[in-house]
Amino acid sequence: MPGIEGETKKTPSGAMPPNIIIMLMDDMGWGDLGVLGQPSKETPNLDAMAAQGMLLPNFYTANPLCSPSRAALLTGRLPVRNGFYTTNAHARNAYTPQEIVGGISGDEILLPEMLKKRGYVSKIVGKWHLGHRPQHLPLKHGFDEWFGAPNCHFGPYNSTDRPNIPVYNNSEMIGRYYEEFKINRDTAESNLTQIYLREGLDFILRLTQAQKPFFLYWTPDATHGPVYASKNFNGKSQRGRYGDAVMELDYSVGQILALLKSLGIDNNTFVFFTSDNGAALISGPEGGSNGPFLCGKETTFEGGMREPAIAYWPGHIKEGAVNFQLSTVMDLFTTSLAIAGINPPNDRMLDGLDLTPVLLNNSDSLKNRPVYFYRGNELMAVRLGQYKAHYWTWSNSWEQFKTGIDFCPGQEVPGVTTHNQTNHSLQPLIFHLGRDPGEKYPISVLSKEYLDVLKAITPIVQKHQRELIPGVPQLNMCDRAVMNWAPEGCKKLGKCLKPPESNPWKCVWPH
Amino acid sequence: MPGIEGETKKTPSGAMPPNIIIMLMDDMGWGDLGVLGQPSKETPNLDAMAAQGMLLPNFYTANPLCSPSRAALLTGRLPVRNGFYTTNAHARNAYTPQEIVGGISGDEILLPEMLKKRGYVSKIVGKWHLGHRPQHLPLKHGFDEWFGAPNCHFGPYNSTDRPNIPVYNNSEMIGRYYEEFKINRDTAESNLTQIYLREGLDFILRLTQAQKPFFLYWTPDATHGPVYASKNFNGKSQRGRYGDAVMELDYSVGQILALLKSLGIDNNTFVFFTSDNGAALISGPEGGSNGPFLCGKETTFEGGMREPAIAYWPGHIKEGAVNFQLSTVMDLFTTSLAIAGINPPNDRMLDGLDLTPVLLNNSDSLKNRPVYFYRGNELMAVRLGQYKAHYWTWSNSWEQFKTGIDFCPGQEVPGVTTHNQTNHSLQPLIFHLGRDPGEKYPISVLSKEYLDVLKAITPIVQKHQRELIPGVPQLNMCDRAVMNWAPEGCKKLGKCLKPPESNPWKCVWPH
Repeated sequence: MPGIEGETKKTPSGAMPPNIIIMLMDDMGWGDLGVLGQPSKETPNLDAMAAQGMLLPNFYTANPLCSPSRAALLTGRLPVRNGFYTTNAHARNAYTPQEIVGGISGDEILLPEMLKKRGYVSKIVGKWHLGHRPQHLPLKHGFDEWFGAPNCHFGPYNSTDRPNIPVYNNSEMIGRYYEEFKINRDTAESNLTQIYLREGLDFILRLTQAQKPFFLYWTPDATHGPVYASKNFNGKSQRGRYGDAVMELDYSVGQILALLKSLGIDNNTFVFFTSDNGAALISGPEGGSNGPFLCGKETTFEGGMREPAIAYWPGHIKEGAVNFQLSTVMDLFTTSLAIAGINPPNDRMLDGLDLTPVLLNNSDSLKNRPVYFYRGNELMAVRLGQYKAHYWTWSNSWEQFKTGIDFCPGQEVPGVTTHNQTNHSLQPLIFHLGRDPGEKYPISVLSKEYLDVLKAITPIVQKHQRELIPGVPQLNMCDRAVMNWAPEGCKKLGKCLKPPESNPWKCVWPH
Repeated sequence: MPGIEGETKKTPSGAMPPNIIIMLMDDMGWGDLGVLGQPSKETPNLDAMAAQGMLLPNFYTANPLCSPSRAALLTGRLPVRNGFYTTNAHARNAYTPQEIVGGISGDEILLPEMLKKRGYVSKIVGKWHLGHRPQHLPLKHGFDEWFGAPNCHFGPYNSTDRPNIPVYNNSEMIGRYYEEFKINRDTAESNLTQIYLREGLDFILRLTQAQKPFFLYWTPDATHGPVYASKNFNGKSQRGRYGDAVMELDYSVGQILALLKSLGIDNNTFVFFTSDNGAALISGPEGGSNGPFLCGKETTFEGGMREPAIAYWPGHIKEGAVNFQLSTVMDLFTTSLAIAGINPPNDRMLDGLDLTPVLLNNSDSLKNRPVYFYRGNELMAVRLGQYKAHYWTWSNSWEQFKTGIDFCPGQEVPGVTTHNQTNHSLQPLIFHLGRDPGEKYPISVLSKEYLDVLKAITPIVQKHQRELIPGVPQLNMCDRAVMNWAPEGCKKLGKCLKPPESNPWKCVWPH
């Protein structure tokens, strides 16, 4: 395992390193939680988690699309560094559909690899999304266990043009979505969240009994279209199918926290709840809510990038705290290492910062840190303090927009939600997100405020861009031959499919 | 005092009738409270009030503009019944600027008139807005005390074309805004909220010492443009000037609740917090937030009509309850009477319902009640359960819109946020507000759901319209002679101004 530089150090909480649980939702928006203003207020467990932990209203993802966001979380690095981006076209979000050739590079160090140094046992439950070819799968990148799928639960497919997505138990598939693992597209019923919940609970129980520190990366995908919920939740929400999925996830979070308590390990388990990107507004009323923010998934406006975020660690994190420091999914890498008492790798640039001063002492030590908003290979925007400067704006192309694909339905801010990739680098659009969280009122370029902000931001951005060494882009090539035709374990099940001849092409990323 | 039909009955809480405090904010939006998702979360006292009381996420005003909303609250009747509307043009919101000839009719019965029957002493602190001519002022309509102003704090004016708005102490003016009562338009500094707070606290203390039941109608206007805050709050918010005003109001709410507690009367005082209409999005970043809802003040979309609402009554209302029943400002009339043990007037149609089953028993007894959304003389929309049917849509006229007046900045829903008054009566636009709180996705008219909803709503609306007897419109005539030139008390102060000759005209209401 090359390049791991971490050395163990004393943990903040003493000798036995704390367990770590990261709950990563899929396409859930900032505005989907009761505590963050969803009018139906159907997340009592998450609201209670916030009331007993710390709410971070200024928490961001690293990319407004799933795969790069998840790669950033597990590596502590921007997608443009860790390779989870494309250079096929300018400023396009890329991800890992079945036809992607690439995935997470062997040169990257993932959180579970680091945690292993202090004896952590790591499990991912749910969607992986860092590549589905054998060398990219979780057990090749530090996870000891996996229950879930490498890709989104799109489908059903006919197994000729396109196989259904496999569900893995560790290194072997045990079935496929829509086959052994049912999702009813008509009724939106599936018991997948219940399965993922049980897998999580079993792992926690087992590792606690074995007295080993654990890292659970719990990544259910019920709120990603096509959304689903199990029978007990189907039709229960005021919000329709999407709300049913949220209710079941909220219930599951409650079950996990309750188990920690009943096992007496809640004081020794750091739990963090967030989402991979903003709500997919393209899904209309079957998608989530980004509250008062502009646009959604795929965009670098607040609706695409700002995430619900709750940190929970009884006895360590002050009950009911709200901290406005800017923080990101990449901080979860660095923070988890700090909690585990492991030095971060020192042979590479990390974008994640250690949040423990914020979490444990409610400090404002990160108040001068910038947050970068990338879309593919382009730095679209930067936030510093309350200000956000847009160097590029783009929602989606006119061609896409005219087919009905709208990342900002019902919203239009002239000159901001542009359908052409618009370069503002010479005179960035600057917003004050405190006064104007909806990014509707660019500050006048003639004002002293604008000039002061520009003067503060410009050198920071210039340094960032000067020093950035982009990683090798991993998401450029596609090939139908690499699809999930014959995943490990398919033989035992008699579920191997015959792949077509290899015929690679440069993937086309419309967003 | 004609027409008062009320008779006292036993109060729910025993012999001594409970005090009643209604805190009515001005242009504060649903999304301005931390507990309702404002990202800066700067309302700790209101959030605590909600945590100790009941949050009503589906609470509505009766009109998206101040005067009619306030008239509805105090009469328990829709503006189209109590006369607070105009027939000069179709579907226009009217209010009470200085040139208005009319005001609240002597035929209407106001809440303090009713409460007097059980010995309540009533005070209004802040903006009245039900007419400024002598016969319309609060002490002529049941209030025993008043400290505040009859109109908005627009200005400063030059006293020749237009007088500054007087501030009254009871029946006499004691100064004018921008003169004795400073508002600095450059710095947005004014200590008015502190004055209104002190007036409220003094009244509570005095009436408690006198052992008399009281009704305090506390209506500060710091969040109405031009927004203001006092020195201690100026510049303190993350949200700029508007946020400063919110912080000071939040602080004041905390002070009032703390006084109730320290006097030991919190268990015998019903407190309700809400706002008169949605946030004035025309004010841009110096206006408030309507959270995820569409448009704002002046419109009958959710952003104009849905209000933050907290009921608080320790020992009577369950701590931390959230009740999704539909309720309105008009219910505050009826509910206050029920709490005071007074039968409502039976000689007229009331639109307000008694919320005590909801508040005291967290019941869903109002689940089938419709809520009507009027703009002036027109029924624009109806909500029933989760559904809202729009019979008319209109934001504002093209002419107004082209001058930069926008009630839906950054928002545009084709066919919904129309700039022509659009009649959908034959086929109303129907939204499911649970799935689609932002009113972006009209339900397909071809769906079974649409037909089912239409079938349920139509007879209710037809009955309402058939039986409605509109009141005499009070807001049709304007005249510069009726402005606040020489209010009662001006002589003592040497502040009387000479009115021009009477020259009445039909008021023009652009919205």
